[in-house]
Amino acid sequence: MKSNKSKVLHNLLFKPLIFHVYDAVVKSDFDEIITVLGTKNIEEAGPILEERGSKIVLQELGNGKPYGTGYAVKLAKDFISEDDSLMVLYGDTPLIDEEVIRDFANFHNENYSDITVLSAVLDDPKDYGRIVRENGEFSEIVEKKELVPGKSYSNEVNSGIYFFSGKAFLNTIDLINDNNSKKEYMITDTIKLAKDMGFKVSAFVSENPEIILGVNDREDLYLCEKALVKRENKRRMIDGVTIHNPEVTMIAPEVEIDSDVEIFGECRIYGNSKIEAGTIVKSSNICNTKIGKNCTILNSYLEDSEIRDNVSFGPFSRLRPGAVIGECAHIGNFVEVKNSNFGAGSKAGHLAYIGDADVGKNVNVSCGVIFCNYDGKKKHRTKVGNNAFIGSNVNLVAPVELDDNSFAAAGSTITSKVYEDELAIERSKQKNIKDWVRKKGLHKED
Amino acid sequence: MKSNKSKVLHNLLFKPLIFHVYDAVVKSDFDEIITVLGTKNIEEAGPILEERGSKIVLQELGNGKPYGTGYAVKLAKDFISEDDSLMVLYGDTPLIDEEVIRDFANFHNENYSDITVLSAVLDDPKDYGRIVRENGEFSEIVEKKELVPGKSYSNEVNSGIYFFSGKAFLNTIDLINDNNSKKEYMITDTIKLAKDMGFKVSAFVSENPEIILGVNDREDLYLCEKALVKRENKRRMIDGVTIHNPEVTMIAPEVEIDSDVEIFGECRIYGNSKIEAGTIVKSSNICNTKIGKNCTILNSYLEDSEIRDNVSFGPFSRLRPGAVIGECAHIGNFVEVKNSNFGAGSKAGHLAYIGDADVGKNVNVSCGVIFCNYDGKKKHRTKVGNNAFIGSNVNLVAPVELDDNSFAAAGSTITSKVYEDELAIERSKQKNIKDWVRKKGLHKED
Amino acid sequence: MKSNKSKVLHNLLFKPLIFHVYDAVVKSDFDEIITVLGTKNIEEAGPILEERGSKIVLQELGNGKPYGTGYAVKLAKDFISEDDSLMVLYGDTPLIDEEVIRDFANFHNENYSDITVLSAVLDDPKDYGRIVRENGEFSEIVEKKELVPGKSYSNEVNSGIYFFSGKAFLNTIDLINDNNSKKEYMITDTIKLAKDMGFKVSAFVSENPEIILGVNDREDLYLCEKALVKRENKRRMIDGVTIHNPEVTMIAPEVEIDSDVEIFGECRIYGNSKIEAGTIVKSSNICNTKIGKNCTILNSYLEDSEIRDNVSFGPFSRLRPGAVIGECAHIGNFVEVKNSNFGAGSKAGHLAYIGDADVGKNVNVSCGVIFCNYDGKKKHRTKVGNNAFIGSNVNLVAPVELDDNSFAAAGSTITSKVYEDELAIERSKQKNIKDWVRKKGLHKED
Repeated sequence: MKSNKSKVLHNLLFKPLIFHVYDAVVKSDFDEIITVLGTKNIEEAGPILEERGSKIVLQELGNGKPYGTGYAVKLAKDFISEDDSLMVLYGDTPLIDEEVIRDFANFHNENYSDITVLSAVLDDPKDYGRIVRENGEFSEIVEKKELVPGKSYSNEVNSGIYFFSGKAFLNTIDLINDNNSKKEYMITDTIKLAKDMGFKVSAFVSENPEIILGVNDREDLYLCEKALVKRENKRRMIDGVTIHNPEVTMIAPEVEIDSDVEIFGECRIYGNSKIEAGTIVKSSNICNTKIGKNCTILNSYLEDSEIRDNVSFGPFSRLRPGAVIGECAHIGNFVEVKNSNFGAGSKAGHLAYIGDADVGKNVNVSCGVIFCNYDGKKKHRTKVGNNAFIGSNVNLVAPVELDDNSFAAAGSTITSKVYEDELAIERSKQKNIKDWVRKKGLHKED
Repeated sequence: MKSNKSKVLHNLLFKPLIFHVYDAVVKSDFDEIITVLGTKNIEEAGPILEERGSKIVLQELGNGKPYGTGYAVKLAKDFISEDDSLMVLYGDTPLIDEEVIRDFANFHNENYSDITVLSAVLDDPKDYGRIVRENGEFSEIVEKKELVPGKSYSNEVNSGIYFFSGKAFLNTIDLINDNNSKKEYMITDTIKLAKDMGFKVSAFVSENPEIILGVNDREDLYLCEKALVKRENKRRMIDGVTIHNPEVTMIAPEVEIDSDVEIFGECRIYGNSKIEAGTIVKSSNICNTKIGKNCTILNSYLEDSEIRDNVSFGPFSRLRPGAVIGECAHIGNFVEVKNSNFGAGSKAGHLAYIGDADVGKNVNVSCGVIFCNYDGKKKHRTKVGNNAFIGSNVNLVAPVELDDNSFAAAGSTITSKVYEDELAIERSKQKNIKDWVRKKGLHKED
Repeated sequence: MKSNKSKVLHNLLFKPLIFHVYDAVVKSDFDEIITVLGTKNIEEAGPILEERGSKIVLQELGNGKPYGTGYAVKLAKDFISEDDSLMVLYGDTPLIDEEVIRDFANFHNENYSDITVLSAVLDDPKDYGRIVRENGEFSEIVEKKELVPGKSYSNEVNSGIYFFSGKAFLNTIDLINDNNSKKEYMITDTIKLAKDMGFKVSAFVSENPEIILGVNDREDLYLCEKALVKRENKRRMIDGVTIHNPEVTMIAPEVEIDSDVEIFGECRIYGNSKIEAGTIVKSSNICNTKIGKNCTILNSYLEDSEIRDNVSFGPFSRLRPGAVIGECAHIGNFVEVKNSNFGAGSKAGHLAYIGDADVGKNVNVSCGVIFCNYDGKKKHRTKVGNNAFIGSNVNLVAPVELDDNSFAAAGSTITSKVYEDELAIERSKQKNIKDWVRKKGLHKED
């Protein structure tokens, strides 16, 4: 990966590679999950996985240390008894999902297999080991370098994912070694050993060949992400979401989107987000944000917020954490809202900053209004009542309160409370100085 | 479609599916257009189609009602006489165009056919009915479920689009029934009937197989839109428009774009829009807006407006309905213009809102200027003369007038008229309070 | 191209077609470069190429003038002696690179060829001339119209790029004529002539078939750009840059991007730009800008600027020429910086314009602050010291100076110097007018 970051912690559709596999496993109801992590991974991912219920096993890496997936899996040996079943998956093969895992496990059980290999049929088998069958039954795995020239092979390849009976596993795992050109303990070696011992080995063909895709460089990362984005967006389209440009719309699998939502252009929608029916989204970034029904969200950047029903929002506006935009409110262009409640039916059409505020219903926040929440030491809140009118370029210096039906005149800096029905104005008298432009030499003839 | 909206009213490249077909038919000069609509469609689309000249026929839908395209077409029977010709098209097969319709009709006429089937040759015939020919002549349509195993079929498939002589139509349409597994009146049944009666049936192969694409779910909708976008953008590229990212640039067919326009990135250009030669557009939404020659439009959102020649605009700016930007004007970043004339050579470089205004030529609208058009009750206009200079953060409280060569000082709220050559200033005296920062505890050492 | 601009001057990934070829040639260490240009090209590109070391030859174009690549190359004859070698390349075949040029030249030299044809194997040979070999050795080029029906040809095609010994060139170039259906001097004619004279002619197959792609219309331009974008982005991914949407991320080849940079969405990165490790970029335009380590750049538009390490920037912000953003600074949304130094740790979170300024360290530029740099006649600079606090909607009217630890109160227009620890305030007293809202008829009941 040419990275300072561990491979399995690189993000794929907003989630580290390893969590794609982990989440699929969690959904598949295994009794126990054991994660073998290298030194660096264990620091970064260990605590999170442990908190999520995994047993963690450290594989020390470095010069002279044993190496290979076979060795990694062997480290988990003490957790396995002869009566267990053990599925071996990889943190860098992220497109596996719970459906495939279940089908794979069912096949293994229904066939009374001792070991089952998960395979896939590829148009181009690349460097994968090939599955050889006799009379339809699994016979052996032939690695690329062992392919006999002139002999024809099927395009069924080994994914490297296996389901072992505890017995088959424990009888073979200690017999593999790194006495090979790669100096690597290869888990694949258990297959031949088990077969020779009389264990039943089968192979289950996944219908979805992309589950085999692994990540070894950033191009692989891109190809896996593209496959996942395509799969997810197709699922959503079939479920009733219109996605006009699914090639550039990235939606995390956990996001909830109702039918009759319409999405245009480059969107990134992730985290704990939800979008309800009838809403149109164009070219926006939406993170951890719930959006209600029949909203319009244009070219905006939203984080950790909530937008209720029938809101028109953007283009070019932003929600920072803690913004709640009430029903039928309107947020126009170049507006930022942060840590504020913005009441139903209220409007902030242009060039405004609403920070640390409680704004009532049907308030008019004119263009250029600033909620001045910071005094150089700390942040303070502002409260604006229902039906208030805040004129253009007004500064509301927090802490300050404007009652219902109060009015702040354009250009005023408001520092003390405005009571109901009051007009607050902070302004000098306009003076016009004759001939000033001409005297300054600024007069221009057309 | 899993939608509250009728299928044929879903948008494809900014226009409902059914209007793609309708517009192609209109351009093909038929004497009469009859549209059969279900209950829901008739409410939503009926009045528009009627206004555009179509006869409208209601097909009642629901439990126990007859069903199928055959039944729908039969409902139009009373409009057809034996001397007519009748082309049957579908509202959910939107990629048909007038060229194909004309070629199809010409073929039908030149072959003295009684019924002509529109066919296409597909790489993958999917579930479409296959055309069987004998000695090159149409023989029959074989539905997928009737394909004889082991027998080979050509990849020529039935589009479902037919051209009937009135005679062939009227002699067969009443003979079809829904006595089949789908309980559906199938128009395809007329073909066999007609053939048996001795009518001449032919098939015309469309050169463009995509015209067969129909929409049954949102993935189909996407695939049709993608095909249409590709077709349209290719046409424009051949005509001299540079499109750097045609996969994400969506331009409605009716938009007029001159040669030597250059388009980058994700753009949506639709409605009554036009872009003239030499203009560069990046990542913008352009709706109902005319843009002149040699402009630069960056990352902006434009609606119902006009930009004249040699304007530089954006990034991150917006035109709302009724903005007219004069020649050689400059609109920079975070600027909104609405319902205003902005004169030739005038500049608004940053963070400004120009609403309901008439701004003359060579006016300098400084950063942060706001045209305060709303007083809480209604909107008023502002008038600014040529060569005026409006300083930063100035509020112009409408209705108000600034003459030619007037000057408004930075930070002023202008509420009354400023005459030629006058400086208007609304400001207090700056006071500096010693040691205030230190006393407030705000002084920081580096 | 249907263009007012000469074909070879159309941009491909931010650089005119002809410069792609020219730069590849420059990197390949030829002794001399000779560019033959038509009348229009010579005006536009001649001076630049001459400055970059090319000899320039004019090919007059127009009615009755000789025509064709053979004639164009012949015009360079006087620069060639029998001992030279001459490679012929085309300004509209831009995907050639120095690696292919070197391999091609090496093959030519190692084979002691007199003429070597650069060929490629295409899935679809289209209209290209085919290479015919006998026993693996080059035999002849057969043009499409000369293909013998029924005879099978390989898919190896002629790129039109040749390497000549001076001797083979000088002995054949004067013998070609335009006595053919196209009335065109064809350089390909030299091949047969040379072969007949006993010169050794070979063909070298490029491994990369896309080098053959030429540009004759805007669709070709798009296809070439797409191929180059794909090649470049793949190279960067392999080198450790995460690119989530490489289909819409356009990065000029000369841009330097470290490993562990992560790029989302539609980005255009070009000119003298560099991005260092750990930085995340989303949906931004970056031109001639250096960005340091561990920055976040969201949906922004940057030109001719510099961003140092650990800066968070955007969304929706802009750098214009001459902006330097110091380490750990924060630029939020709707902020523009131009021709300014913005010190380390300083913040401008929202809706601000910083123009022609020197801003110290740890300065707080509040929302709505405007550096008023223009007085209607000329631009002036503003200086703000370390730890200064500039309140919301403040105007700093340049030339003006704020010392370290100075404070400007919200809503003030600052026109004269503020000394250390001073609070500067320009404001009137807030007046609250009772019952004004009710009297004006603006009071609303919920």
